Amino acid sequence: MPKIIVEVMPKADLLDPQGKAVANALHRSGNKDISAVRIGKRIELHFDREVTDADLAAARKIGEDFLSNAVIEDVVNVVVEN
Amino acid sequence: MPKIIVEVMPKADLLDPQGKAVANALHRSGNKDISAVRIGKRIELHFDREVTDADLAAARKIGEDFLSNAVIEDVVNVVVEN
Repeated sequence: MPKIIVEVMPKADLLDPQGKAVANALHRSGNKDISAVRIGKRIELHFDREVTDADLAAARKIGEDFLSNAVIEDVVNVVVEN
Repeated sequence: MPKIIVEVMPKADLLDPQGKAVANALHRSGNKDISAVRIGKRIELHFDREVTDADLAAARKIGEDFLSNAVIEDVVNVVVEN
């Protein structure tokens, strides 16, 4: 079943307390080489039919307008996965 | 700066109420062709140096053991992004 994956991340210049907490935990458990962690969303839009270019454009718009908050988040990726 | 992306999704046979709510809202706003929505996590592990195969293996293990809950979630993807 084809799906469109929309990936949303907190903006780069924004603090991400959840990611910071995970980074601290990883450091404590010995993973010193991981300099930072950021946590965002991966949203799958499922389709019962083939995905068209129009669907991809619509998904991009849905990602910008509905699935993300443009004040604090960026849509970093919109791709089709079959 | 290279990073490793770990993607975690709720298991396929599990109810995803958040995704269901988004799907319902998309249907109400006219996107009838989206049959289902599932919402997971996209976690970026940042590095200050080049990422090695050992880092990727370690990230896979971190994803399984620490970033996801194997009872309800699957790690669907672990990739390097430069």
